[in-house]
Amino acid sequence: MEYHIRYDAVQEALTLLDQRFLPVREAFFVCRGTEDIVIALAAMVVRGAPAIGVTAAWGCVLAALELEQEADWRTLLDNRLERIASARPTAVNLRWAVDRMRRLWSPEMSLARLVALWRTEASAIQRQDITNNRAMGVFGAQLIPQGARIMTHCNAGALATAGYGTALGVIRTVWDRDKSITVIANETRPFLQGARLTAYELAREGIPVRVSCDNACALLMQKGLVDCVVLGADRIAANGDVANKIGTYGVALLAHEHGIPFYVVAPHSTFDLNTPDGAAIPIEEREAREVTHVENAQIVPDGVAVYNFAFDVTPARLITAIITDAGVLRPPYGEAIIQLFAQS
Amino acid sequence: MEYHIRYDAVQEALTLLDQRFLPVREAFFVCRGTEDIVIALAAMVVRGAPAIGVTAAWGCVLAALELEQEADWRTLLDNRLERIASARPTAVNLRWAVDRMRRLWSPEMSLARLVALWRTEASAIQRQDITNNRAMGVFGAQLIPQGARIMTHCNAGALATAGYGTALGVIRTVWDRDKSITVIANETRPFLQGARLTAYELAREGIPVRVSCDNACALLMQKGLVDCVVLGADRIAANGDVANKIGTYGVALLAHEHGIPFYVVAPHSTFDLNTPDGAAIPIEEREAREVTHVENAQIVPDGVAVYNFAFDVTPARLITAIITDAGVLRPPYGEAIIQLFAQS
Repeated sequence: MEYHIRYDAVQEALTLLDQRFLPVREAFFVCRGTEDIVIALAAMVVRGAPAIGVTAAWGCVLAALELEQEADWRTLLDNRLERIASARPTAVNLRWAVDRMRRLWSPEMSLARLVALWRTEASAIQRQDITNNRAMGVFGAQLIPQGARIMTHCNAGALATAGYGTALGVIRTVWDRDKSITVIANETRPFLQGARLTAYELAREGIPVRVSCDNACALLMQKGLVDCVVLGADRIAANGDVANKIGTYGVALLAHEHGIPFYVVAPHSTFDLNTPDGAAIPIEEREAREVTHVENAQIVPDGVAVYNFAFDVTPARLITAIITDAGVLRPPYGEAIIQLFAQS
Repeated sequence: MEYHIRYDAVQEALTLLDQRFLPVREAFFVCRGTEDIVIALAAMVVRGAPAIGVTAAWGCVLAALELEQEADWRTLLDNRLERIASARPTAVNLRWAVDRMRRLWSPEMSLARLVALWRTEASAIQRQDITNNRAMGVFGAQLIPQGARIMTHCNAGALATAGYGTALGVIRTVWDRDKSITVIANETRPFLQGARLTAYELAREGIPVRVSCDNACALLMQKGLVDCVVLGADRIAANGDVANKIGTYGVALLAHEHGIPFYVVAPHSTFDLNTPDGAAIPIEEREAREVTHVENAQIVPDGVAVYNFAFDVTPARLITAIITDAGVLRPPYGEAIIQLFAQS
């Protein structure tokens, strides 16, 4: 699974493990150009903030390659990068990756030279993401008590990153030294990342995991079955407010109410210093069918409207600590985040 | 839908609208004896505290009828009543209905006489339930502001009662005089009563309803899209703690945090004065398949365990008011409940 995003430099294609069909079927989605990348991002063939950053970086390479015969390639490429960067609005890693690629592109550069630079950079982004995740694993593991029953939401695992995972990276690091931990994966409607992806990842490695419906979260906390919450992020504002998968804010409030530590795990690329606070983060709304159907099973009557906000924002005050690739941040987050970027 | 539970006195059969197949298909499940009734209750062909009370009352009639040729009918009938009363543990209306039938049974009575009395009593329970719901509708409607956006959880509607509904009865009464209200139905995993049943009931009557995943509840409240919460109950303890569908406790905590009124709607038969508080209420755990599959779609990997608690308990302190068929109860609920039963 460390290779669920694979660039083949002979075929010039990016092969993605198609996450829409897990855990029942391991299918692959091959991207050969910009349109494939945009579809893969928008339809959630691949999802998870760091993973969509890596995918976008390779998307830039594919976008450049398909313009080799075009005289006007600079304008066309510029448009295509923007299409990739705006395929999904909430996770900042997507734009971060495209911006990082863009910065290597100087006006006089040939397309061949640019492609060469971008191949190297996309590889570096992908490799660095795994390195970051392992660093977060080590920093985060210090916070998890012996035998902890760890609740997580959505999938912040290998499948959400280049490999190893952010929140699940912490869990993997803890598991390596403490076989008494267990994980509760909130199923995470409507896309069911917890039930389908987190359970799949952890079960494959023998890490004990139980899936629970999102609405059982409060009861499990009330019954004393949850020692801490560890999850990822799609964007962290300059004040420490965290946008993450829908339901995260509710889990945070319930954890706070029950006195349970609530940890967010995210690399530098998830922080957005240009966003002052959570209110400024755009929240993606997705199509109704994700809510009205589970595969082919219709669960909402015809003609009934739904809400399908894909993310929510957790205020910084509910977060016990933010685990980054450079160490653990504690409140007040505004200052801690300034320091984090001052170091790097 | 007021007749989703129909007793046919010629066929001697209870026909239930099979709620497992809604909203896609209107199928019916015919009960001709005790075993059918127990299956219908346990498999949730029919669910909702008052509806299972009504079903159990007719189940007593069917249990008696199938013993007409038995010399030892008294012992056999006694066992069958216990089987019906214990088909599900949490909603007290089930045992309440069976106990109410039992009280009419005196030792010297003939089976024919008992059947005659029970037919009348089961009819009375069914009819009275609708009358109660209409009364709760009137009491509850006074609490709902003009144009309210009302969140409800699970299905406390016509399908959960003999007809009209408890929480949805309040909504129906409000709708009759205020066409500007709208309803948010939490989908209510795993059985999806909100998505499948509440949306079906309300949409049929033209009451505007939007279905929302359970984990979006906190975001909708944060965005100011929820003016009040109105829902039903499966058992109310003597101190006002409320057992209701899994997720209710979380909704209550989130409503409390956002300053949103939280109303519980339930008739006398849902109160259990023998249960001092919520800790004494048995919480049903149901089979894993309800969580791992939606119809035939598998959403959890093979071999992964789940939690499937069907109910939770909301502490009385989080409840703004309890709307009963005899009026609105306010805290402190211990005293209010004593008064309620002293009057009746």
